[in-house]
Amino acid sequence: MSIKIGILGYGNLGRGVESAIKQSDDMELVAVFTRRDPSTLTINTPTAKVLSADDLENMENDIDVLMICGGSATDLPEMTPKYAAKYNVIDSFDTHARIPEHFANVDKAAKAAKKIGIISCGWDPGMFSINRLYSMSILQDGKDYTFWGKGVSQGHSDAVRRIDGVKDCRQYTIPVEESVNLVRSGSNPELTTRQKHTRECFVVAEEGADKAKIEEAIKTMPNYFSDYDTTVHFISEEEMARDHSGLPHGGSVIYTGKTGEGNKNTHVIEYKLTLDSNPEFTGAVLVAYARAAYRMNQEGTSGAKTVFDIAPAYLSPLSGEEIRAHYL
Amino acid sequence: MSIKIGILGYGNLGRGVESAIKQSDDMELVAVFTRRDPSTLTINTPTAKVLSADDLENMENDIDVLMICGGSATDLPEMTPKYAAKYNVIDSFDTHARIPEHFANVDKAAKAAKKIGIISCGWDPGMFSINRLYSMSILQDGKDYTFWGKGVSQGHSDAVRRIDGVKDCRQYTIPVEESVNLVRSGSNPELTTRQKHTRECFVVAEEGADKAKIEEAIKTMPNYFSDYDTTVHFISEEEMARDHSGLPHGGSVIYTGKTGEGNKNTHVIEYKLTLDSNPEFTGAVLVAYARAAYRMNQEGTSGAKTVFDIAPAYLSPLSGEEIRAHYL
Repeated sequence: MSIKIGILGYGNLGRGVESAIKQSDDMELVAVFTRRDPSTLTINTPTAKVLSADDLENMENDIDVLMICGGSATDLPEMTPKYAAKYNVIDSFDTHARIPEHFANVDKAAKAAKKIGIISCGWDPGMFSINRLYSMSILQDGKDYTFWGKGVSQGHSDAVRRIDGVKDCRQYTIPVEESVNLVRSGSNPELTTRQKHTRECFVVAEEGADKAKIEEAIKTMPNYFSDYDTTVHFISEEEMARDHSGLPHGGSVIYTGKTGEGNKNTHVIEYKLTLDSNPEFTGAVLVAYARAAYRMNQEGTSGAKTVFDIAPAYLSPLSGEEIRAHYL
Repeated sequence: MSIKIGILGYGNLGRGVESAIKQSDDMELVAVFTRRDPSTLTINTPTAKVLSADDLENMENDIDVLMICGGSATDLPEMTPKYAAKYNVIDSFDTHARIPEHFANVDKAAKAAKKIGIISCGWDPGMFSINRLYSMSILQDGKDYTFWGKGVSQGHSDAVRRIDGVKDCRQYTIPVEESVNLVRSGSNPELTTRQKHTRECFVVAEEGADKAKIEEAIKTMPNYFSDYDTTVHFISEEEMARDHSGLPHGGSVIYTGKTGEGNKNTHVIEYKLTLDSNPEFTGAVLVAYARAAYRMNQEGTSGAKTVFDIAPAYLSPLSGEEIRAHYL
């Protein structure tokens, strides 16, 4: 019997989730739910329906896990608790400061409905978080570093697009290799924002726009760019389409810790992701956690959970005997 | 209130566990238990006792978790089930083919006693296993590779020491860098044993021994060396003591998987350990899982477990709120 999945929202992440379900023999995409007019949407799964988000009012018997792929950070604080009152849900909420509040809201709704809500799933928060936690739990005298990239930051690309005279932009976040190597050496450096990452922007300017002014506006933009060394390249629309249509990303969590008499021994733990498609990988993580949510809920577990609360075995479609035989 | 720990066996691993307990504010080493005469043993924790293994017959009220640090692979199949009948236990059993049988024996004993027995803990099996499982659960269309080293293999060092005319040996297992890079590229190569690792031996020969004969005996030794490119260096006892007294190890699990239409996108997940001291890191992993065993048993869980069955949050001394705030 397949786990029946619904996807709410069909942007990059929703399509990434759909792609991962296709690779999962134990799952079936029942429907994509949209707040737009369903007739305007074409999806990649011929056997699944496109329905209105309003239809979620009474589909409790048709959906085992609902993937909340809301379009923006502002959607999820409202959506995830709302649907946790009816469905097992998964989201990728990543506004760090608001996680305690979001966790509490989802927990309340999910517990009342005897459902599970797994929040902040993906790779950061998500797989990177797990690696930080495992490492600090093993080596208590240590320090963690996170580097992102090389990859496209959609938030930064959007910020540049809002500048006058900019038609399109792709912004890459790039870790500073010397700093990564310094961390790997176990020397526990203190690194400034500027020392950890650089930023590279590929910009299509409107015809006749003042490129020097655009470059200045980018490089001095507070929060987004002013604390970084930023490079700006002006390119044509054709070059943008040809060379920058993908959404690669990745990064690494590096943890260094000491043990032994006089802390003489250094250990380095590095977890590194190199992803051709950020939304497809994130979608695949969400789908693995949907499997966990379903199975834990079947066992009677309810409430809000994060990746920290889920034993690895729940993510695998294989049995305990099989994973001990093949992966231990 | 501290978690009260006992260590059974005081070899390299027992001392590694002791070292990790010193770094754990929530734990206390109660005693080291030995099958030797306790008066012959000096330990590094002044507040802990050295007792005979026989004393474990009646110390159920003094020990929360017993770390089974038996001296050899043949000890654990007998020891771990025996003590799981009285204590929460942790071991590092790594004879892969016998894990199902060992798991069943520990499960039976632990369930009857309402205790937990976590088997096959450490970094491989252990942290490497977790990473193989997470990766294959996320990217179901993929392949995992494990490389070990550079590090000292104690089994191979011992095998060389048994050769006539050999006084001492240290054997390093070294991953073949070109193969590691080939895997990282996402090309999913088929690699032979010889293509994955080389072996390097530092040998102290007895006076007058036939070095050419020793080198030949090493390089042609079945299972241990004959399938590898092996380099042999003869060194003095002084050089051995000066340059090869440590027990460094490490390695990496690299998983490559595909997603998207026509499998066009490749993702690479790499988990890499670089350890100055294999027994101290392994001991630190065991201690983190001792914390988990204690807490899960307090909640009423019993039976045999592996690292696959333990949610990451149980390993951390911090509360759920704290880990969500600091590590998510």
